[in-house]
Amino acid sequence: MAAQGAEERVEQAVRLRAAVLTISDRCQAGTQADASGPAVAARLTGQGYEVVRHEVLGDERAAIEARLKELVQEGCCDVIFTTGGTGVAARDVTPEATRAVVEREIPGLGELMRAAGLKKTRRAALSRATAGTLGRTLIVNLPGSPKGAVESLDAIVDLAPHIVELLQGRTAHGPESGSGSEQPE
Amino acid sequence: MAAQGAEERVEQAVRLRAAVLTISDRCQAGTQADASGPAVAARLTGQGYEVVRHEVLGDERAAIEARLKELVQEGCCDVIFTTGGTGVAARDVTPEATRAVVEREIPGLGELMRAAGLKKTRRAALSRATAGTLGRTLIVNLPGSPKGAVESLDAIVDLAPHIVELLQGRTAHGPESGSGSEQPE
Amino acid sequence: MAAQGAEERVEQAVRLRAAVLTISDRCQAGTQADASGPAVAARLTGQGYEVVRHEVLGDERAAIEARLKELVQEGCCDVIFTTGGTGVAARDVTPEATRAVVEREIPGLGELMRAAGLKKTRRAALSRATAGTLGRTLIVNLPGSPKGAVESLDAIVDLAPHIVELLQGRTAHGPESGSGSEQPE
Repeated sequence: MAAQGAEERVEQAVRLRAAVLTISDRCQAGTQADASGPAVAARLTGQGYEVVRHEVLGDERAAIEARLKELVQEGCCDVIFTTGGTGVAARDVTPEATRAVVEREIPGLGELMRAAGLKKTRRAALSRATAGTLGRTLIVNLPGSPKGAVESLDAIVDLAPHIVELLQGRTAHGPESGSGSEQPE
Repeated sequence: MAAQGAEERVEQAVRLRAAVLTISDRCQAGTQADASGPAVAARLTGQGYEVVRHEVLGDERAAIEARLKELVQEGCCDVIFTTGGTGVAARDVTPEATRAVVEREIPGLGELMRAAGLKKTRRAALSRATAGTLGRTLIVNLPGSPKGAVESLDAIVDLAPHIVELLQGRTAHGPESGSGSEQPE
Repeated sequence: MAAQGAEERVEQAVRLRAAVLTISDRCQAGTQADASGPAVAARLTGQGYEVVRHEVLGDERAAIEARLKELVQEGCCDVIFTTGGTGVAARDVTPEATRAVVEREIPGLGELMRAAGLKKTRRAALSRATAGTLGRTLIVNLPGSPKGAVESLDAIVDLAPHIVELLQGRTAHGPESGSGSEQPE
């Protein structure tokens, strides 16, 4: 554990770049202030991330898919955090858009976020947030309220550096993949 | 929290309409009495639902999909509860039929039902029950035994009124979607 | 519960046949010794399984899908346990290959394996391992490290005999499917 802690600190020394994508018809139309995007960006900065982009999109599946792909292709960031559109209302399409573009879905991150949310409110079960990888970028959905978004972020943010390392081939994942430290993959 | 409790009571004042769909070759053929459908219907009535339909279908994927779509189109109910066909045997196809028709799958409800079931029996892990939305209707799979069906129902029934509200646009989900009370979506 | 224990012992009397499929580019190329396959095989033998096959494949989705289908068609085993390729790195495709061939995915087994792994390490959340059925055979993904593979196996191995029974029609699953003992399906 001591060794892993040390490794974690080294990982953190590589400053991760994040893009924050607020997904909300009302925020895009300007009829509502974007509260969750800034809250997520502030938390990420506090966690040592460089927030390189912060954009606002409407709840349009095609537009979300296109923007996710562009951001990945551009290579501007290591992780894209979306906020909003994870619920069950008719316009909520963020998980579907995410699932359509990722190469590898990581169901365990959605499970972790819901489990953390359930400690606060039963309605956390309704979040359909998912996560996955496209190329060398990790994509994570967060819910649309500032409080829910930050709580979901906190539930998985410690795992992001290792995922990014694996995606970008900075981890040997070689002979030692048989050791205990890499054990769960 | 007090405010939310009050809101919940108001929601309950809108009496939800449920359809119960027993899915079982044997019950359809009449070689076995349908025990789970009546058990689910009784529990729903006790929870303040109006049970507007109770039908029995065989384990035929195409027939299940068609009936789910018809019931939604008809607009006769707010929630469809299926019971049966969620296991791993060759004829169990209810989750596949459900996934094929819903617009938004809600994985958290299946997770909640399995987690509740696991407190009683390890075999609850084998339930493949899922849930999702089609138009303004919520669809929830329950397992095929009366006891398992009612236990699964109890694990998620408190969340149904809020989901129906969101689907039917009765919740503003407007400016206050940024507030703590709507936080997990 | 006493009755169920007795039933479990009878089930175990039917010795299950397992195939172990190590999925790893390096093991296939011979640049790394296969540690997880033998560890899984040893644990299965200890659990009363007959390990009828132990093969090594590269991380090629098409090859994995083809081999899974062949093993099922051959009818040589009751359960196929894969080990490796469940992570988030670019070459990890075992869950995608598995999902492409199974007729029924069983999400609860992946959930159980991740929940068990999370008690040891946070990184268990990154395992994308899944399980499902094809014909009369159960397919289960295990992670690629010996320790993680055995821990995941231990998290679900008690459920395999009942699943195989259901797949092979040895369980009546008849009138008593309405009883408490079959309740969660």
